[in-house]
Amino acid sequence: MKILLIGATGLLGTAVKKELESDHEIIQAARHDADVEVDITKPASIKQMFEKVGKVDAVISATGDAHFGPLEEITPELNEVTIESKLKGQVNLILLGTDYVNDNGSFTLTTGIIMDEPIYQGASSAMANGAVKAFVKSAAAEAPRGIRMNSVSPTVFQESSEDLRAFFPGFEPVPLSKVATVFRKSVEGVQSGQSYEIY
Amino acid sequence: MKILLIGATGLLGTAVKKELESDHEIIQAARHDADVEVDITKPASIKQMFEKVGKVDAVISATGDAHFGPLEEITPELNEVTIESKLKGQVNLILLGTDYVNDNGSFTLTTGIIMDEPIYQGASSAMANGAVKAFVKSAAAEAPRGIRMNSVSPTVFQESSEDLRAFFPGFEPVPLSKVATVFRKSVEGVQSGQSYEIY
Ligand SMILES: NC(=O)c1ccc[n+]([C@@H]2O[C@H](COP(=O)([O-])OP(=O)(O)OC[C@H]3O[C@@H](n4cnc5c(N)ncnc54)[C@H](OP(=O)(O)O)[C@@H]3O)[C@@H](O)[C@H]2O)c1
Ligand SMILES: NC(=O)c1ccc[n+]([C@@H]2O[C@H](COP(=O)([O-])OP(=O)(O)OC[C@H]3O[C@@H](n4cnc5c(N)ncnc54)[C@H](OP(=O)(O)O)[C@@H]3O)[C@@H](O)[C@H]2O)c1
Repeated sequence: MKILLIGATGLLGTAVKKELESDHEIIQAARHDADVEVDITKPASIKQMFEKVGKVDAVISATGDAHFGPLEEITPELNEVTIESKLKGQVNLILLGTDYVNDNGSFTLTTGIIMDEPIYQGASSAMANGAVKAFVKSAAAEAPRGIRMNSVSPTVFQESSEDLRAFFPGFEPVPLSKVATVFRKSVEGVQSGQSYEIY
Repeated sequence: MKILLIGATGLLGTAVKKELESDHEIIQAARHDADVEVDITKPASIKQMFEKVGKVDAVISATGDAHFGPLEEITPELNEVTIESKLKGQVNLILLGTDYVNDNGSFTLTTGIIMDEPIYQGASSAMANGAVKAFVKSAAAEAPRGIRMNSVSPTVFQESSEDLRAFFPGFEPVPLSKVATVFRKSVEGVQSGQSYEIY
């Protein structure tokens, strides 16, 4: 398959690439240093990416920025960081990209555990996770041409920085290799509308 | 209690008012014909509302506009209607209103069944529902001064128009009186972080 992987240069994206590259052709996308440059916060940039890349069999988003901060310090403006990137950035990949996905192809987006298990400073990110999960489930139910749509909700990665892991006390971190396997299930399998929880 | 009810003049708001007005002081808010005028899509308008109303014991949102349309016709621009109103409009009530809620007070926001059970043309609304549910759950976990936060997810109302009910084939509609009772549970009870499903 021809797979467009957005966020390919990040922690998760690198693991997904490693999992899939021996069996598939991977086109790497990110804002910098990738096969195709894209900023998912800009619809025009998403459109340009799809025009450049053309038809693919799968779109994977392993990206999405979110604002982390104490609830009492989240302003509508800071919350906008999350809405523009992790929420709209990912939703718009589906809204603008469906025409570029071949029949029976797939979209796989990324959410995260904190929509289900709150952590301190996580409310804005939880919001985006819940939005993406629900959008994917609903959009999958009316997706055209056999196109499938799933989201993957990992807990904190073993390979994340110690600073990040400290926000998840008592959460058992998951190795990225295990998270990457679930992206293979979404891309190569037949399921649609799923939220894969890796907790 | 002193309760600020946003969307007080709508179908749901009218039912919630009827349920609570004999026991509480209700301040009605909406864009038109209300005690206090507010447009939740505008943060400045939300701020003005809270400044005008002052301290309250409970904030209820019985509002939130969403775009309905076939997935293949949802553009990022049309999706913005939902993001500005049902999603950010409600989330911003918490972000901008927490300082105006008395100790041990509460927020109750409204979502809806289609985040869990997709309907045709519902993907944008599902997105907002999932966002509000996850935000409320996460924000509740770090809310200050005993403030509680819940969301209510009704199925389609018996009293909704026939045109609207037609989008929910085989869904059993719920009477608004039953939905309104759940808002009483959220306002007068001790629970927090809940998503009350009325399916
Ligand atoms: N880290 C964890 O433990 C963890 C746990 C659960 C869920 N997640 C989720 O997993 C996803 C990836 O996390 P990660 O830790 O792998 O992140 P990361 O290492 O920071 O990588 C982010 C990737 O996305 C790209 N990117 C960032 N902003 C972009 C934009 N606006 N447009 C296009 N590409 C952009 C980055 O490259 P450029 O900077 O060059 O654009 C990079 O390739 C996120 O959604 C995160 O919330 C992470
Ligand atoms: N109808 C259903 O069967 C159903 C089922 C499940 C969930 N829901 C949800 O329940 C909520 C209420 O639905 P409803 O059927 O009661 O709606 P409705 O009858 O259209 O009432 C909407 C109310 O909100 C106010 N409003 C609209 N936009 C506003 C804004 N930007 N700022 C402030 N107030 C605004 C309206 O007054 P103004 O126009 O004067 O502002 C009115 O009071 C919505 O979130 C809806 O998605 C509805």
